[in-house]
Amino acid sequence: MGVNSNRVDDFSSHGNTLKITAEAIMPPTEIHRVCLPPYKTTREKLKQKLGEIFFPDDPLYRFKNQTLVQKLVLGLQFFLPIFQWGPEYSLTLFKSDIISGLTIASLAIPQGISYAKLANLPPIIGLYSSFVPPLVYSILGSSRHLAVGPVSIASLVMGSMLSETVHPSEEPILYLKLAFTATFFAGLFQASLGLLRLGFIIDFLSKATLVGFTAGAAIIVFLQQLKGLLGIVHFTSKMQLVPVIASVINHRNEWSWQTILMGFIFLAFLLTTRHISTKKPKLFWVSAAAPLTSVTLSTVIIFCLRSKVHKISVIGYLPKGLNPPSINMLEFDGHYLALAIKTGLVTGILSLTEGIAVGRTFAALKNYQVDGNKEMISIGLMNMAGSCSSCYVTTGSFSRSAVNFNAGAQTAISNIVMAAAVLVTLLFLMPLFHYTPNVILATIIITAVIGLIDYQAAYKLWKVDKLDFLACLSSFAGVLFVSVPMGLVIAVGVSVFKILLHVTRPNTLVMGNIPGTQIYQSIKRYREALRIPSFLILALESPIYFANSTYLQERILRWIREEEDWIKANNESALKCIVLDMTAVTAIDTTGIDLVSELRKMLEKRSLQLVLANPVASVMEKLHLSKMLESFGSNGVYLTVGEAVSDISASWKSEP
Amino acid sequence: MGVNSNRVDDFSSHGNTLKITAEAIMPPTEIHRVCLPPYKTTREKLKQKLGEIFFPDDPLYRFKNQTLVQKLVLGLQFFLPIFQWGPEYSLTLFKSDIISGLTIASLAIPQGISYAKLANLPPIIGLYSSFVPPLVYSILGSSRHLAVGPVSIASLVMGSMLSETVHPSEEPILYLKLAFTATFFAGLFQASLGLLRLGFIIDFLSKATLVGFTAGAAIIVFLQQLKGLLGIVHFTSKMQLVPVIASVINHRNEWSWQTILMGFIFLAFLLTTRHISTKKPKLFWVSAAAPLTSVTLSTVIIFCLRSKVHKISVIGYLPKGLNPPSINMLEFDGHYLALAIKTGLVTGILSLTEGIAVGRTFAALKNYQVDGNKEMISIGLMNMAGSCSSCYVTTGSFSRSAVNFNAGAQTAISNIVMAAAVLVTLLFLMPLFHYTPNVILATIIITAVIGLIDYQAAYKLWKVDKLDFLACLSSFAGVLFVSVPMGLVIAVGVSVFKILLHVTRPNTLVMGNIPGTQIYQSIKRYREALRIPSFLILALESPIYFANSTYLQERILRWIREEEDWIKANNESALKCIVLDMTAVTAIDTTGIDLVSELRKMLEKRSLQLVLANPVASVMEKLHLSKMLESFGSNGVYLTVGEAVSDISASWKSEP
Repeated sequence: MGVNSNRVDDFSSHGNTLKITAEAIMPPTEIHRVCLPPYKTTREKLKQKLGEIFFPDDPLYRFKNQTLVQKLVLGLQFFLPIFQWGPEYSLTLFKSDIISGLTIASLAIPQGISYAKLANLPPIIGLYSSFVPPLVYSILGSSRHLAVGPVSIASLVMGSMLSETVHPSEEPILYLKLAFTATFFAGLFQASLGLLRLGFIIDFLSKATLVGFTAGAAIIVFLQQLKGLLGIVHFTSKMQLVPVIASVINHRNEWSWQTILMGFIFLAFLLTTRHISTKKPKLFWVSAAAPLTSVTLSTVIIFCLRSKVHKISVIGYLPKGLNPPSINMLEFDGHYLALAIKTGLVTGILSLTEGIAVGRTFAALKNYQVDGNKEMISIGLMNMAGSCSSCYVTTGSFSRSAVNFNAGAQTAISNIVMAAAVLVTLLFLMPLFHYTPNVILATIIITAVIGLIDYQAAYKLWKVDKLDFLACLSSFAGVLFVSVPMGLVIAVGVSVFKILLHVTRPNTLVMGNIPGTQIYQSIKRYREALRIPSFLILALESPIYFANSTYLQERILRWIREEEDWIKANNESALKCIVLDMTAVTAIDTTGIDLVSELRKMLEKRSLQLVLANPVASVMEKLHLSKMLESFGSNGVYLTVGEAVSDISASWKSEP
Repeated sequence: MGVNSNRVDDFSSHGNTLKITAEAIMPPTEIHRVCLPPYKTTREKLKQKLGEIFFPDDPLYRFKNQTLVQKLVLGLQFFLPIFQWGPEYSLTLFKSDIISGLTIASLAIPQGISYAKLANLPPIIGLYSSFVPPLVYSILGSSRHLAVGPVSIASLVMGSMLSETVHPSEEPILYLKLAFTATFFAGLFQASLGLLRLGFIIDFLSKATLVGFTAGAAIIVFLQQLKGLLGIVHFTSKMQLVPVIASVINHRNEWSWQTILMGFIFLAFLLTTRHISTKKPKLFWVSAAAPLTSVTLSTVIIFCLRSKVHKISVIGYLPKGLNPPSINMLEFDGHYLALAIKTGLVTGILSLTEGIAVGRTFAALKNYQVDGNKEMISIGLMNMAGSCSSCYVTTGSFSRSAVNFNAGAQTAISNIVMAAAVLVTLLFLMPLFHYTPNVILATIIITAVIGLIDYQAAYKLWKVDKLDFLACLSSFAGVLFVSVPMGLVIAVGVSVFKILLHVTRPNTLVMGNIPGTQIYQSIKRYREALRIPSFLILALESPIYFANSTYLQERILRWIREEEDWIKANNESALKCIVLDMTAVTAIDTTGIDLVSELRKMLEKRSLQLVLANPVASVMEKLHLSKMLESFGSNGVYLTVGEAVSDISASWKSEP
């Protein structure tokens, strides 16, 4: 076994020119019949198809063969996973959860404030959003390691989409209303995707495009931080690379050296701690504690020097107290509804993608399952609840969940601990943030988003799959140079285009026999595979659809033409039979059926026989329904290429 | 051989529960290595890929190994096919061409006038369009049977799209200008598709959706003819089913019994001749001659009764003379450019689809090849030339080409003969049409479009492929109830959705061994296929992509769970190895690679071995590039399922 080393020799379009002798073809022991699939009514087929589309994981299997009480208990555990791990919860687990909860709280508080500013919202909204949603999630969610709260990408996208229409500082109340309404729609959309079991929609944001999208968004976020980092007062409201750079240069006179100095010192500190934690994962707490340390330290410095440094802007007054209800701020009519829905959709799908991916990653590490559709409902309900309690879009954050995991979180209790810490902050500690400089928030954001630029993943894409790399690159460029939602559209478009391209131009291979076996393989790939005289064996590597039937017809005829040219040039025995290996033709539509039928007629006129080998069940069924099987007759369809070759050669020998 | 009859027994989800004994597994003679494909640089791969996308038919193969002179001659023959058949042209061929040319002329003249009215253009434009384009095509085109001229669908679409914005009788000059400009863009678009070798774009209008689209358009055309057939003066300008029916009923007072009587008599005559020709294809000339007969007869009747029947509207004055140049009427700037481009794109793609399909159909019947991209350039140039000589969009008409074929056309000369007949008409016979009643044009159109409603094809779609039928139905409903371009968008959308659905939810099959062979087949489909103890063999029937990797992971884990449940319930030997048959996995992307890697780790934690059987070249290459092959080690990838099973069983036996 094992794998051949790469061979650098270039085969001609004809590949291996050796031919097997007719006697050397190994006869199979017997010829097998090709079966139709078991008969099913349209209704049964529809039921099965819909089952595969909407319930591929068979979510009700747990409930099979259970008593009613057991079913009720299982149902409760399904909808509220806290009942699943709750009974087995112990003091040891609680200790781990307390430590990890406090650790992520020390990250969540400064990040919450920072990300709210990224979304052009008052900083306090970031803290509100780190209080209610984690509580909701801890009851509903099925991941044990997800750390819930505001995240950078969704914050950026919400900020950029809303502020295109409504200026956040000129109409702050309207802006806030729109943010809550968009959050409500994001939650509604997420929960509906889960309820309708349409979770597979988020799969259309492929990992490759997300790498590019996230990196582009990270750079946009970084550029926005130049305002805080350089102390610029009048900054562009645009997001793209070019206008932001222009704005930074044009406002050179507003740069404040005190701000820059403070910013770079703390940025160096944060990046160093980040580097330490990356090198030694055991020291995760170094980078986890750094943001809060920076906030504390810088606040103290500014407080002490408050009479001297006026040039460094600070957060200012923050109200004490818990989340006020915001249900009265949801706006479902009027001019801005479309904007709120659009923003909700885009932020909803982005935050969902991040939340589900994070949940799956850590579930895989600890070997438990996260139910995608269930998670979507949890995240959706959490955001709907959030929108009624002054929170904006939240999801599972990748960076904080990693810290949570490393700090030893065992259950969703760590989210409750974190929420409790935020509660204490909201009730008692808010005045302490008065003198926190805005530049520190910028450094915290920069440190957080630097990790989103995954150049190693991009390099791997380049190495393994050039088309995936192209998808990555186009969504990156789309975000950076056009707009964030446009980047998303490009990402999905390129991914779909890739699928269509593969279907439109499928591979076709000339196959040969590996002597002494019934194995047929590509003669270009396997040197030992030999052509069979008078046969041309073609493997089609794709379903046959309207989108490729013209191509396939042209390509097959070209293979035949090339084969005949070669035979003429080499004085070989004439071509008599074309075998199409249909193993990989996993589906066929009516246009495909027409192709096979036309090809057969065309070849018949040229005295060439066309036979099919190993058609899959659905292809066989459609051949049968369209009466094509009858026209192929008794020796037109074989179970394997080997049986086709030996049966047809035998029939030639028996004819004089 | 042959095919099994349908078996109605329903297998459980577990299918056949028989198991083969370990001893009965047939050992293969030897274990083969899985090869990587021959090494190619990125540049070589790109070149090959682009070659397959743009030059699948290897259009330059004729020029290989030829002298310069031969190459020049071949090139000339390629670009101007008249040089190919011209030298061999004979009097016998000319006789056939004259007969068929005159036959299609007798159809083309009344149809040209009628279709121009369908596009809201002056009737004379229809005759102009039957003169220049056929001449251009006869020099450039590669089909020998295509009868070129205006066609119903493209006329309808142009009329409906332009008249939404510009009223044809209120601003006739502007309307005419837009029609020529749209025709120019249609031609430009068609020629560019051909030149850029993007012809495969028209394949995305699948036959199934075209059946629905054409039928819907035919009904729309029929409804428009109610105006002429009933003699209504004030008719709605809308196209959809509901407003047209409403308009017919609301204007009952305008119905003219003389018109209706005349209309129905001639309609009955035309339909009878059509029926005769359909039943006996040899009598094709009966229906071919009928329209001109009707026009002549009805014109004579109206001329004789001209003082008595004022209620029957007639064509009126038509100018004598050849096509005036219209290059000065092309409008490339201003308010209406977008409309002209849009109309050009839609009519261009529709007329191209019809022209190419017709060309291919008759080429297949006479066993010659039509080069799709070459045809597109010819049709495009013909329309660009047409737009400069007072013609609107033309293409190969299906009905007239069929008559041309049946009448024995041998070469494009029949188009020249037809053009000559139109020339004579234009120069001398125009005054004769003065008294031709409009109702006759309506009956001619109705008779022509009735053939476009292909209910038999729709029934076959329903029988063979329910999803194709759905695509057909949605484009039918889209045209009929929304709008013609919308119907087209729906048609393409449904077709693409179908492809994506297949990729998103691929089949997975449990395979078993057919005793005494190395063949592994679905145990649900083949009763004789037996499960191998301790093995679960799964065939994946699709490329592994971002769009299905989540699904596949869930589905594979569910298969394993179900297998383990079954083993527990039946006290069978424990599951030890999962074999993934990758024969039909024709491509993999980076997300797919991650799936395989994660699955392997997941199963390893559960002490299950994962092996791959028969990965195709591109999959093998990506496994290699992503270092996955190394992690699979020396017995993780096998050439066939049979070798995997016997090698792994052997290794278990050798371990105590």
